[in-house]
Amino acid sequence: MKPMHNVFPFTAIVGQETMKLGLLLNLINPRLGGVLIRGEKGTAKSTAVRALADLMPGLNVVNLPVSATEDRVVGTLDIEHAIRQGEKRFEPGLLAAAHGHILYVDEINLLDDAIVDALLDAAAMGVNTVEREGVSHSHPAQFILIGTMNPEEGELRPQLLDRFALSVEVSGEKDVPSRMEVIRRRLAFESDPEPFRQRYGQDQMLLQERIVQAKELLRQIEPTEEMLEWTANIGIRLEVDGHRADITLMKTAMALAAYQGRTRVLPEDMTEAAMLVLPHRMRKRPFEDQIGGVEELRQQLGNLLTEGAHVT
Amino acid sequence: MKPMHNVFPFTAIVGQETMKLGLLLNLINPRLGGVLIRGEKGTAKSTAVRALADLMPGLNVVNLPVSATEDRVVGTLDIEHAIRQGEKRFEPGLLAAAHGHILYVDEINLLDDAIVDALLDAAAMGVNTVEREGVSHSHPAQFILIGTMNPEEGELRPQLLDRFALSVEVSGEKDVPSRMEVIRRRLAFESDPEPFRQRYGQDQMLLQERIVQAKELLRQIEPTEEMLEWTANIGIRLEVDGHRADITLMKTAMALAAYQGRTRVLPEDMTEAAMLVLPHRMRKRPFEDQIGGVEELRQQLGNLLTEGAHVT
Amino acid sequence: MKPMHNVFPFTAIVGQETMKLGLLLNLINPRLGGVLIRGEKGTAKSTAVRALADLMPGLNVVNLPVSATEDRVVGTLDIEHAIRQGEKRFEPGLLAAAHGHILYVDEINLLDDAIVDALLDAAAMGVNTVEREGVSHSHPAQFILIGTMNPEEGELRPQLLDRFALSVEVSGEKDVPSRMEVIRRRLAFESDPEPFRQRYGQDQMLLQERIVQAKELLRQIEPTEEMLEWTANIGIRLEVDGHRADITLMKTAMALAAYQGRTRVLPEDMTEAAMLVLPHRMRKRPFEDQIGGVEELRQQLGNLLTEGAHVT
Amino acid sequence: MKPMHNVFPFTAIVGQETMKLGLLLNLINPRLGGVLIRGEKGTAKSTAVRALADLMPGLNVVNLPVSATEDRVVGTLDIEHAIRQGEKRFEPGLLAAAHGHILYVDEINLLDDAIVDALLDAAAMGVNTVEREGVSHSHPAQFILIGTMNPEEGELRPQLLDRFALSVEVSGEKDVPSRMEVIRRRLAFESDPEPFRQRYGQDQMLLQERIVQAKELLRQIEPTEEMLEWTANIGIRLEVDGHRADITLMKTAMALAAYQGRTRVLPEDMTEAAMLVLPHRMRKRPFEDQIGGVEELRQQLGNLLTEGAHVT
Amino acid sequence: MKPMHNVFPFTAIVGQETMKLGLLLNLINPRLGGVLIRGEKGTAKSTAVRALADLMPGLNVVNLPVSATEDRVVGTLDIEHAIRQGEKRFEPGLLAAAHGHILYVDEINLLDDAIVDALLDAAAMGVNTVEREGVSHSHPAQFILIGTMNPEEGELRPQLLDRFALSVEVSGEKDVPSRMEVIRRRLAFESDPEPFRQRYGQDQMLLQERIVQAKELLRQIEPTEEMLEWTANIGIRLEVDGHRADITLMKTAMALAAYQGRTRVLPEDMTEAAMLVLPHRMRKRPFEDQIGGVEELRQQLGNLLTEGAHVT
Amino acid sequence: MKPMHNVFPFTAIVGQETMKLGLLLNLINPRLGGVLIRGEKGTAKSTAVRALADLMPGLNVVNLPVSATEDRVVGTLDIEHAIRQGEKRFEPGLLAAAHGHILYVDEINLLDDAIVDALLDAAAMGVNTVEREGVSHSHPAQFILIGTMNPEEGELRPQLLDRFALSVEVSGEKDVPSRMEVIRRRLAFESDPEPFRQRYGQDQMLLQERIVQAKELLRQIEPTEEMLEWTANIGIRLEVDGHRADITLMKTAMALAAYQGRTRVLPEDMTEAAMLVLPHRMRKRPFEDQIGGVEELRQQLGNLLTEGAHVT
Repeated sequence: MKPMHNVFPFTAIVGQETMKLGLLLNLINPRLGGVLIRGEKGTAKSTAVRALADLMPGLNVVNLPVSATEDRVVGTLDIEHAIRQGEKRFEPGLLAAAHGHILYVDEINLLDDAIVDALLDAAAMGVNTVEREGVSHSHPAQFILIGTMNPEEGELRPQLLDRFALSVEVSGEKDVPSRMEVIRRRLAFESDPEPFRQRYGQDQMLLQERIVQAKELLRQIEPTEEMLEWTANIGIRLEVDGHRADITLMKTAMALAAYQGRTRVLPEDMTEAAMLVLPHRMRKRPFEDQIGGVEELRQQLGNLLTEGAHVT
Repeated sequence: MKPMHNVFPFTAIVGQETMKLGLLLNLINPRLGGVLIRGEKGTAKSTAVRALADLMPGLNVVNLPVSATEDRVVGTLDIEHAIRQGEKRFEPGLLAAAHGHILYVDEINLLDDAIVDALLDAAAMGVNTVEREGVSHSHPAQFILIGTMNPEEGELRPQLLDRFALSVEVSGEKDVPSRMEVIRRRLAFESDPEPFRQRYGQDQMLLQERIVQAKELLRQIEPTEEMLEWTANIGIRLEVDGHRADITLMKTAMALAAYQGRTRVLPEDMTEAAMLVLPHRMRKRPFEDQIGGVEELRQQLGNLLTEGAHVT
Repeated sequence: MKPMHNVFPFTAIVGQETMKLGLLLNLINPRLGGVLIRGEKGTAKSTAVRALADLMPGLNVVNLPVSATEDRVVGTLDIEHAIRQGEKRFEPGLLAAAHGHILYVDEINLLDDAIVDALLDAAAMGVNTVEREGVSHSHPAQFILIGTMNPEEGELRPQLLDRFALSVEVSGEKDVPSRMEVIRRRLAFESDPEPFRQRYGQDQMLLQERIVQAKELLRQIEPTEEMLEWTANIGIRLEVDGHRADITLMKTAMALAAYQGRTRVLPEDMTEAAMLVLPHRMRKRPFEDQIGGVEELRQQLGNLLTEGAHVT
Repeated sequence: MKPMHNVFPFTAIVGQETMKLGLLLNLINPRLGGVLIRGEKGTAKSTAVRALADLMPGLNVVNLPVSATEDRVVGTLDIEHAIRQGEKRFEPGLLAAAHGHILYVDEINLLDDAIVDALLDAAAMGVNTVEREGVSHSHPAQFILIGTMNPEEGELRPQLLDRFALSVEVSGEKDVPSRMEVIRRRLAFESDPEPFRQRYGQDQMLLQERIVQAKELLRQIEPTEEMLEWTANIGIRLEVDGHRADITLMKTAMALAAYQGRTRVLPEDMTEAAMLVLPHRMRKRPFEDQIGGVEELRQQLGNLLTEGAHVT
Repeated sequence: MKPMHNVFPFTAIVGQETMKLGLLLNLINPRLGGVLIRGEKGTAKSTAVRALADLMPGLNVVNLPVSATEDRVVGTLDIEHAIRQGEKRFEPGLLAAAHGHILYVDEINLLDDAIVDALLDAAAMGVNTVEREGVSHSHPAQFILIGTMNPEEGELRPQLLDRFALSVEVSGEKDVPSRMEVIRRRLAFESDPEPFRQRYGQDQMLLQERIVQAKELLRQIEPTEEMLEWTANIGIRLEVDGHRADITLMKTAMALAAYQGRTRVLPEDMTEAAMLVLPHRMRKRPFEDQIGGVEELRQQLGNLLTEGAHVT
Repeated sequence: MKPMHNVFPFTAIVGQETMKLGLLLNLINPRLGGVLIRGEKGTAKSTAVRALADLMPGLNVVNLPVSATEDRVVGTLDIEHAIRQGEKRFEPGLLAAAHGHILYVDEINLLDDAIVDALLDAAAMGVNTVEREGVSHSHPAQFILIGTMNPEEGELRPQLLDRFALSVEVSGEKDVPSRMEVIRRRLAFESDPEPFRQRYGQDQMLLQERIVQAKELLRQIEPTEEMLEWTANIGIRLEVDGHRADITLMKTAMALAAYQGRTRVLPEDMTEAAMLVLPHRMRKRPFEDQIGGVEELRQQLGNLLTEGAHVT
């Protein structure tokens, strides 16, 4: 799906700061590992994804529909031809088309498990490998994976949840002025897209520059012993399974520091990163209980980081 | 399905004012987002849809049967041909045929979810995109989506409900004279369609002119701050998920004002629009409990709009 | 299925007066809307349908088996041919074969829902339309739809029930002489069909003449204000959903009057018609409770019609 | 399945008198309507069927396996050929092969419902009709339908049960000498079939002659008023659904009389016939309760016939 | 599956005497009717089957995998070819390959019912018949059917259980020296098969000779009146359904006597045979309750045989 | 999947000693029978498998995806060609590609049972045999089978579990320094793989040499009577089903001794081996209850071995 000229500007999206941050961090480090956007209906999830692609020149969104077959996603290998002609013939799929771009899966919780699996494999390796009867074909498949889902309609199984680097929750704005602003901008855009886009041209350019700069800063950030210790402490105390979460936590904190224009990771980067990396990996997810749950987690993380500094 | 000459005239339909209004508002603003007609059996839902098309010259009804496959709906892309010949070959589906027309899905609650999804996607974007193995084809697909369903036979899931702009409830007339009139007109039409149609020729023409005029007025209506505030207040107070409802509420109120021959949106337009836009998006739908529910909602909206004017 | 020469004569069927009436009314007005025959096993439902066709010269029975696919019922459109050759090629199905004849579905409650839907659509419109990828083909499909079912083996869903004009209940004869007569005639017919048929030749001819005359009279009957009022009253009081029932009630009463040799519809025609039109459309069907239920309904209708004359 | 020379002789089967009678009556009147054999495992049901065919020269057993598809049973109509060449081409199925023979379905309760339906239709009409897209082909299909089932593994639905003329229950012999004789004969047959068959040559010939004679006598039997009255009385008193049971009861009693060398039907023929015709058609089948149930039914029938003579 | 040269010798299998006996009796009388081996995982069921085939020159094992389709098992009949060319063309399946050999089905309880049915039919008749559209092909299919199953993973239905002549239970050895011997032999065999096989060469030869001799003796054994009486008594007292069990019991006892070098069947042969023939045919199988159950059955059989001698 | 140059070094994996041991023992004795890795998400199971292959030159990992069909796994036999041309044509599958390599199945508990079955059969025999309609093709298929699964998402059935030689549990590190080290190494590797790999070059070489030496020592180890007795005692006391566990226990203990540079098996090798061989084969698996369960098993094994020495 080529970016269309009447795309809503990213900087014109009202609120939804966590979602926007999760998306931007994946632009800054495209190897970060994607983001899962969970939220109620009508919260402009698709709009945000298209707006993200529009931020960076040459970045496209490849759409993976719920009804896609596995062949269509990974591509097909013409095995008959390989055997008879002695040369491989591969017909590329959506993963090939997504290389260097965004792969967007709306309602990913309704997608066939085998396909989610295949695309998370490719996302993890940066390579898509198709094998049939001893013949195989590989091609690079480095993409930013963005999935959306409405948890009212079923969850992803834990094994798959864990393989999304970040997860964010979205919901509609709850105060009147913000809500008015959402409608005002949307109507303005719909009635005439071009002038609306021009109005945000400056903001868009500044954001683009900030991302480019953050990419540069990220290359200079080294993980410190202190950060490693914080990370290990968090993982053990919060009983997060496995090590993938730890590594993602580090990488996210570094991208956050870069986004803030720093080359040094601060405790608040760790806390902020943990809010994006941990909730969907904990057995009892905080957002399942109460709205206060997320705040409590943030508190706990703050304590942990201070305390952790003394313990080791 | 081409309009047939023996179509029952729209203006000859007795009662069912809400359904007729929902249909007409979509004629006035074809980008409004469709209407879902919910109701018991035998309430002339199909008759009304065909009559609507007959109102405007050149407007056809494309019928999407419950048993349609996804290929048949979105069209098929001959990928072999694309690869070998180097040129795309696309065989258009029902969405292509529906461009500029009405797409009608009877018993939409029995349709396969993936297909409902595909057609709501196309409806939202105004474009149908078919992608296979890195090859893609797009064509415009702007249509008025009209779905009908008998809720006795299963509901649509919330994610899909939300994507219909309007939803109306229909039931049979409950007073004797109206009911007599329904039968009288139907029998008259069935025994000899032509003279019956001539009898309503004048009414039909007047209604057509009113629609043409309303389309013109709609172009001149601007959303006011007051309207934005009303809308935001309603969304927050009634706990409507997301922002899609808000925007649809504004657009519906504007179409209503235009239909009334005004370029200014009044509180009663907001209330009227809310009755078409909100019920199917609320967690606990008023019509599920009692007949009084809808009336209560109307009351609540009235209060909200008055009160809202003081609060902000 | 061509009428066979050894068909059991319609006039030789013992008892089952309601079923026979329901069938004959559809002969008199082939646009009435079909009949659903509900009953226990072994009650000669198939025999009666074949006997009905045998009454009118040139009327065939087309059999729609439970295992029929949708293609086989509606026909298939060769879309490849349409695109490449530029001309449509349609291979007609059972609905085409049924045009001008009887379409008979034994055990219709076991048929796939999508197919029941397709055939009731065609029955309602008098036209069968097949659409594929923007290409469509229509042909007239006016037929008398007759379905049978044994309710012990599952019900039709309400949406489909409502679209059968009439519904009749059949059960075996319960008095000795009638039951003897049933066996006597069946054995006589089975041992030598030809003389048996000759014995009923006169009765058959008289019935044919009566039907031809009734068709003629029906053309002269006009709905009166009184009838409209009766109908509306019945629909509202008995809480019958929608308006399809009302219109069918009127048409059935008119066919009944014509069958009685009259051009004036009497209250007893209304009552008689209601017994064929309403029971399967009421939420709580009388025959589900007790044998007395039907009689009670008849009583109630009688009161309604008398009383109704005073109320309005 | 051609009769094999090493078939176990029918007259060598020990006990199982009811099953043998049910099979023989269908030989005497091949239009009687088949027999369903219900019984526990290992009771030589298949052996008896093959032995029956072996009794009459030229009578074969066509085997319908549980996994047969509908095409394979009814045959297929090459519709493409019909349209292009203008001539029908029909590839016959098992029903065609069974014409004039026995159609044997082991474990009929495990067969697909649609197929049981198709074969019971053909059995009832004596004709198999295959229709596709307006083209149809018919061929005679008169066969003796024999089904077996082990009720431990599921029942037939009532609608299908009713269409078997007769139903018999089989179980293993329960007294020592009979059981010894069963084994003795089976082992003797297995060790050397030919001499064993010769030992029963005389019995087989006598039975064949008796069947031929019974077929002749059957042609001379007329139903009497008394028989009709008995039959009607039984049907009403025992609350047997429909009239198919009545007619089958008459025909079975006549075949029984013929088998006894008489042209007059006696009350005991009626009772005997009822034991084969009624149990599987009654709502509460006697064999479901206790072993005494069948005896009670026989008693009740005896009383009914005596009493019935006085009542009417 | 051709016997491989590194097959474990049958005589080197430690313990599992009942299983080995069940297998050998089928070698002695290949028409006995197969054996079902039921047992926990890891008890060398497959090893024993391959070892059995290795005992007799030219006896192969044909493997029927759980995923086999019916076509693959029974073979396919090219009906098109038959009609056009006028000659039958049959592509044989596994049943053809198994003729004269062992047909081995591992985890038979997971096999599709229709296939188990087809192979038990062929096993019973010694013939495989494939019929399609009136064309049929038969070929001899006499094989020793051996099935294995782990009852933890689901049972066979009774109808299928009954058609296995014998059934044996296997479990791991429970005393230390036997268990040591099992491991010792297996490791010795695995480290160098050839010398291990030579070590058992003498035993294998003696067993082969014993089987050949038993086959010869079996031809001379006649069933006595006493044996018949025993068998009938057992069947009636233990309430074994049908007569198949009785006949199998006799044949098994005769094969046992022959294996013991006798031409006279002793009561202990009957008891031993009953242990292989009856348990899986009794409604309440003894092995389902307690380990003592089988011993109790043996006791009961002993009493029955002594007592039975007096009763008749 | 060819080993990639940026594979994480096996010796750089922090902790997970049991998993690493299980993998290495299969390298030392490739006929040992594979290993099943059970564990929570994110515990580097895939990383370890790829690292293992990287240890030995020429050892590849063949990936078997969850969505693989049976044809794709075992290969296909072109039966048409075999019959017409008289020569077999076999298109090899993944099992052929895996010969001499590692066959890796991620999330094996989600794989179709029939496929797990087929691959465990091939693994057991060292041969893959494909049979169709009497034609068969075999090829060697000796591979190290490695499966992973997250038990949160469903178990393997016992019959399949038993056929994995070893089973290991993995979970994330729970102490801070180890956890820090995991992250430190992973980040170092990700930021620049080549220098990281060089840093472990020495360790990798030493491990390779140790494996080569262990393979050599293994050839010299003979099972002693004492070991056999230990093994039999363990099997009986712990109520392990069947004998496959016993033999695997012996072979694992021998590989362990060889890995320790010895040719003599010590009691601690037996205990260590039992920890890998028994838990997944016991009815009540220790790890299902508490963390202490595994330790208790180890204790029990220690006692058994000492005590066992006295008992026999």
